[in-house]
Amino acid sequence: MAQLPANTADAFHRGRFWLVQPKDTGHRAGADALILAAAVPTDFAGRLADFGAGAGAAAMAVVSRCANAEAVLVESEPEMAHFARLTLNHPQNASLRERASLLVADVTLAGEDRERAGLGRNAFDFIIMNPPFNAASDRASPDVIRQKAHVMADGMFEDWIKSAAAVLRSRGGIAIIARPQSIGAILAAMDGRFGGAEIVPVHAHAERNAIRIVVRAWRGTRAPLSLMPPLVLHEGSDNRFSARAEAINAGAASLLGD
Amino acid sequence: MAQLPANTADAFHRGRFWLVQPKDTGHRAGADALILAAAVPTDFAGRLADFGAGAGAAAMAVVSRCANAEAVLVESEPEMAHFARLTLNHPQNASLRERASLLVADVTLAGEDRERAGLGRNAFDFIIMNPPFNAASDRASPDVIRQKAHVMADGMFEDWIKSAAAVLRSRGGIAIIARPQSIGAILAAMDGRFGGAEIVPVHAHAERNAIRIVVRAWRGTRAPLSLMPPLVLHEGSDNRFSARAEAINAGAASLLGD
Repeated sequence: MAQLPANTADAFHRGRFWLVQPKDTGHRAGADALILAAAVPTDFAGRLADFGAGAGAAAMAVVSRCANAEAVLVESEPEMAHFARLTLNHPQNASLRERASLLVADVTLAGEDRERAGLGRNAFDFIIMNPPFNAASDRASPDVIRQKAHVMADGMFEDWIKSAAAVLRSRGGIAIIARPQSIGAILAAMDGRFGGAEIVPVHAHAERNAIRIVVRAWRGTRAPLSLMPPLVLHEGSDNRFSARAEAINAGAASLLGD
Repeated sequence: MAQLPANTADAFHRGRFWLVQPKDTGHRAGADALILAAAVPTDFAGRLADFGAGAGAAAMAVVSRCANAEAVLVESEPEMAHFARLTLNHPQNASLRERASLLVADVTLAGEDRERAGLGRNAFDFIIMNPPFNAASDRASPDVIRQKAHVMADGMFEDWIKSAAAVLRSRGGIAIIARPQSIGAILAAMDGRFGGAEIVPVHAHAERNAIRIVVRAWRGTRAPLSLMPPLVLHEGSDNRFSARAEAINAGAASLLGD
């Protein structure tokens, strides 16, 4: 770990937790992690896993807001796992430390490999995930490359959501933040595994297309899907945060009012 | 046709077209048909089919607003086809009559059966559809019945969208209005056939869950999906139509601004 990049420690939830993360890369956590964390009900009590936790922003935001939550940061990339460890050991996070831990494991493992990696069946009450975007599919590119990226991204959701279903107890929850264009792949991967999906579109501005979706659902139910009112992050000519976005950023509100 | 139920003739688009439909059944057309029709670009020029046209509200709304559109009302149920005929022959629709016709055919036919029924390959530039809801899945019911209804509804979208793909020219458009819970089945059926999907959530009120979605997409493209700002139908304490809903009801605006 001698070659680790420069890092920063940044306050979130108005200083209730701190995140240690690389200073100059594209991995830096922000609004997405806080919105994802807000999909966990405030009164959630139990064991949560953050799949692909990175430096730990979403998981720490859950334990910060939900007093009875325990979180396991699941990260396979050594460099990001190291930052997750630095986050957990940061002195300002001491009061949260006993409810958060790190598991270095690849969430795309299956079957016995997954169990051996520490991701046992029925071991969790809630899974949150912010799967890495495939940046290639955002760029202008020939149809063939774009289609390949599309298939890769679809396969990723299938792998991640299948693993989530395997490690969740019955009626356990899942929450995902992703780009709107992934909605089909997410719902296809949830089909037969999760029900009662609630989709929240996230718009930077009310009059523009959604930049993210949050999908929350429940293991082993067949309740119908709901499409919720959107979360609008910015409003007004001065581009300030909306009151709702401000409350989510501050760890003072859940996304779905529970 | 001696046993036809009582009917009414109702003005739409501020009297620019009239609809003859049964008086006392659940088949009566309304806001859904007008919103669906609004998904067709105003400058659309070409041949459109309205799959499951009923009495013809959506198709007539298209020819009423889009001066260069021709519409084929495709309906298999004899009673509803009769009402479609009455609509086409209504004296108040005389100016639209030469751009609208009826085809009595089942859109779920496949292959040569579909072609023999008059739904030829590459025969259309745009398809609109408002597939019948399976009311059973809305009622409280045992999981088994609900799951069966779910599977039936999913199969219906696959059948209808597959037929639409077969009869559309390359780069032709499709627009569907449906319940939000059908979004997964719709996107699954579109996968590999249609691209560039634009989804518009439709909310009766801004603060409540969506009651409908409109999905518009294009045959044979691989452009990514967009989730658009919602259409909100009612606003204010007096529950009046929003300006946007009013314009759509009046045939004065398209849904997607084109």
